[in-house]
Amino acid sequence: MAREPVFAIGLDYGSNSVRCLVVDVRDGREAGSAVWEYPSGDSGVLTDPGNPHVARQSPADFVAGLEGTIPEALRAARAACPEMRPERVIGIGVDTTGSTPIPVDRHLQPLALQKRFRRDLGAQAWMWKDHSGMDEAEAITALAREHRPHYLAKCGGTYSSEWYFSKIWHCLRQNREVFDAAYTWLEFADFIPAVLSGLTSPDGVRAGICPAGHKAMYCDEWGGYPDAEFLSLLSPEIGALRERLPARAFPADQVAGRLCAAWAGRLGLPAGIPVAVGAFDAHLGAVGAGVGPGRMVKIIGTSTCDVLVASARERLPDIPGVCGIVKGSVLPGYYGIEAGQSAVGDIFNWFVTEVCRGDASLHGRLTREAAALAPGASGLLALDWENGNRTILVDAKLTGLLVGLTLHSSQAEIYRALIEATAFGARRILDRIQEYGVRVSEVVCCGGIAEKNPLFMQIYADVLRRPMVVSASAQTCALGSAIMAAVAAGPAAGGYAGAEEAQAAICSHKQDAYRPDPRAGTLYDELYALYCELHDSFGVAGTGCDHYPLMKRLLDIRRKARA
Amino acid sequence: MAREPVFAIGLDYGSNSVRCLVVDVRDGREAGSAVWEYPSGDSGVLTDPGNPHVARQSPADFVAGLEGTIPEALRAARAACPEMRPERVIGIGVDTTGSTPIPVDRHLQPLALQKRFRRDLGAQAWMWKDHSGMDEAEAITALAREHRPHYLAKCGGTYSSEWYFSKIWHCLRQNREVFDAAYTWLEFADFIPAVLSGLTSPDGVRAGICPAGHKAMYCDEWGGYPDAEFLSLLSPEIGALRERLPARAFPADQVAGRLCAAWAGRLGLPAGIPVAVGAFDAHLGAVGAGVGPGRMVKIIGTSTCDVLVASARERLPDIPGVCGIVKGSVLPGYYGIEAGQSAVGDIFNWFVTEVCRGDASLHGRLTREAAALAPGASGLLALDWENGNRTILVDAKLTGLLVGLTLHSSQAEIYRALIEATAFGARRILDRIQEYGVRVSEVVCCGGIAEKNPLFMQIYADVLRRPMVVSASAQTCALGSAIMAAVAAGPAAGGYAGAEEAQAAICSHKQDAYRPDPRAGTLYDELYALYCELHDSFGVAGTGCDHYPLMKRLLDIRRKARA
Repeated sequence: MAREPVFAIGLDYGSNSVRCLVVDVRDGREAGSAVWEYPSGDSGVLTDPGNPHVARQSPADFVAGLEGTIPEALRAARAACPEMRPERVIGIGVDTTGSTPIPVDRHLQPLALQKRFRRDLGAQAWMWKDHSGMDEAEAITALAREHRPHYLAKCGGTYSSEWYFSKIWHCLRQNREVFDAAYTWLEFADFIPAVLSGLTSPDGVRAGICPAGHKAMYCDEWGGYPDAEFLSLLSPEIGALRERLPARAFPADQVAGRLCAAWAGRLGLPAGIPVAVGAFDAHLGAVGAGVGPGRMVKIIGTSTCDVLVASARERLPDIPGVCGIVKGSVLPGYYGIEAGQSAVGDIFNWFVTEVCRGDASLHGRLTREAAALAPGASGLLALDWENGNRTILVDAKLTGLLVGLTLHSSQAEIYRALIEATAFGARRILDRIQEYGVRVSEVVCCGGIAEKNPLFMQIYADVLRRPMVVSASAQTCALGSAIMAAVAAGPAAGGYAGAEEAQAAICSHKQDAYRPDPRAGTLYDELYALYCELHDSFGVAGTGCDHYPLMKRLLDIRRKARA
Repeated sequence: MAREPVFAIGLDYGSNSVRCLVVDVRDGREAGSAVWEYPSGDSGVLTDPGNPHVARQSPADFVAGLEGTIPEALRAARAACPEMRPERVIGIGVDTTGSTPIPVDRHLQPLALQKRFRRDLGAQAWMWKDHSGMDEAEAITALAREHRPHYLAKCGGTYSSEWYFSKIWHCLRQNREVFDAAYTWLEFADFIPAVLSGLTSPDGVRAGICPAGHKAMYCDEWGGYPDAEFLSLLSPEIGALRERLPARAFPADQVAGRLCAAWAGRLGLPAGIPVAVGAFDAHLGAVGAGVGPGRMVKIIGTSTCDVLVASARERLPDIPGVCGIVKGSVLPGYYGIEAGQSAVGDIFNWFVTEVCRGDASLHGRLTREAAALAPGASGLLALDWENGNRTILVDAKLTGLLVGLTLHSSQAEIYRALIEATAFGARRILDRIQEYGVRVSEVVCCGGIAEKNPLFMQIYADVLRRPMVVSASAQTCALGSAIMAAVAAGPAAGGYAGAEEAQAAICSHKQDAYRPDPRAGTLYDELYALYCELHDSFGVAGTGCDHYPLMKRLLDIRRKARA
């Protein structure tokens, strides 16, 4: 602490709000913070009553979130910490949800800000959980399987409806006017640094390796984004877009740009400080939680993200069904491995809101009641696919299942079974990754559920049969962004030479871990075997005992019935 | 109507209350009625917090129900109908739920009335939906399969945990003291006529062919109840019970006894009038609704019962999975065929009460919301096995399943899917019975749901692809009992010579039937095919795609977890 006090700003754009953290670069102390809820739609999400797969967000909310958080966080930091002065802020880091592509014009303005597109859902940001491109995802997977199998191998064998090209192609098919008006499509994580840097053309954007590699089949091995010939197989228009995509993508410890004077003035910050390349919230959350070799980070929110790293000195085999393995996407010098479940907290929220028609307080009551139940005592078993399956099946057309219901099955028993189902889903992912030689000796968790729900954490410890550690910071994503800001600023400005050095100074976790209970673990092993039976039968084609088409048939019937 | 006005009393003992109807024998006019709720337990049901399979009832409630209803129904009838006078009552008919065996001493007193057994769950009436004898049912099925396959053929190939000997044997194993104190076990339907007739020994009881044939493997072809040698295979004590079971059983149009002076005085009725042989509520409900060749009656309540008749002039083949085919159990001269679902209304009640934690008013709201949905539009599909499967799988160890869940699945969608699931279950039964040559050209429905829930009725019409007719009487069970009382009394007393003649005079149905919508029917055909896929996979061993053991494994794990 002999060093001169300097600060970094971490911006974390989540599903419903944006958060800003002002971090003391020396020790990770969180000097001040601010949160700003997106004002549009339903908690920031724009939906289509006629199509449950649509989830969009307003780019105007994203831009407004800068002025909504940074000045307030700076004020809070100054109030709490006399050493803090705006001129001591050495950089800004940014993480966002994703894949969240935003159509922009040639001046880098989101189409959604144009009057004619203001109310057009297609012109908004296509939120990560938007599944309207399901058919396109299937077609991309089929085309890549035939023509570019190496593209697929890096993203688990299946291209998802949640990802960049599925969404853009769906827009082309469904909303030609928007597609034609768009010069290109920027990932949310690339858009914010570009805005802060005052760029006026998409051609100057320094894209993040994290969104590009994990969601857009970008890889330095084959020259960046998928080649134009392949993209033309989707459609000539997508092929033509290729030349308007960035030539290279960069890790998040690199400089995306310098804070422009206009935004510096609006935010009360020094102009010219570096803005780091953007990355996904989960990846920088993992950095903020201390991800490292053998130490997996699980970010638990509406969905979950499992982030691991494996040394890039040896070649890592492709892992079937694991969404992404991208060199440099988490920590420079390591493969970043991303897996995760498309709904976790969302499942509990759905149950409380839609099924029980309760308010948020019901979570507390159900958690208390569910905690009084013994593992396995409900006789219930669920598949956690209410929002499809992201890992290891990569199939948005899977749905949730609940079995073992009796006339005595209670609300709390179902709630607990849903938590257990997500834990089984988590174990299935971990088992798959371990089969391919990536050992996981420790799980560090972050997110509201990890901090507030001991029942959830204990069930996970028992099902995964590993201690579960909770990150000390409640804001690991913003903290990870601040870490990258400090590395982008570099040692000369009071920052760090590398991410691991910064992590060592900044990251910490709570002392009490959740320890696995062997008796519960044994019962859960039995339930997990049944979970795997259903998982494979309903989720994998050609398993012998094969209900694989059933969930898809139900969606077909639903589509017909609603037509 | 030129005949002298005479009246018959129909007593209908349901799951939660007893109802008495005073019927004008000439035309079926319902002159007066009364209902009395069982005061014990939870709406008359005694449960065991440690074992969800236990459901018992108090025999004292049953006896008290006589004075709780008959005098009030007579008063109501006199007030409404000046011609009605107690001396014009020509007989009493009785129906009850079942199989509901009651342990009694040698003086015909229920053990539950003895001080030492008053709080003993084993000494109470073992309610129809008690499943604690699941293991015994399996063992009886296995023994009969090996040693007396013809016993099983009449009850659909599997002896149920809901039935007489499963319960008695379970009592012997779990509660030896009660078993040893019992002289014999009377079906509820036999117990009430015996009480009204003032019998003081079980040996004088005239048992009903309906409970004996449908639940206790009684058949005149093999000399009545199962032989002592077979019952001794269960245990010597059950074998020894054989000689204390009645030698013969009788159809419900026969006289069980004559109203004794003591009860005549208490009830305000003439002593000596005939009390008809008892039968199950569903069977006499079918009689009251006008069951006949080709005309199936569906009694829809907490569970459902499908009752059909087929001429006894030709031999009817055994129908696998159909609970009972018993000559004379519904109408004399016909095979009575009983099938049904172990939970229907109970499933909706469970969902509203246990899952949604709503009160009864929620049914109305959910029905309105569900009625606004199109068939198949929810994408949900359920198996209706929350209380096991009675027909055609005869397996209490099956449980409910719900698939197709998404983060948008609503309370009303699930409610509708549960209704649809029971309709698919109903269709599966109908399909099976038709495969064996019993044609069903018309479905007459009775019960509260049939009268009050047009959505339910329309879904059934669409799924079964047949018009659904509603019985005019809201009290078909009590009406059927009164019909049997009028036949037991005979023409000389102003009654009838036979049940069909009495039905022709007394039964009627509402004019408006629910007509099947062909478009909905086509969609439901597709969903029904998926229902059958899950039905066979989870419910039938050895189907190729076979999750048959999974539900049983969950119950095993539950048992272990609760131990």
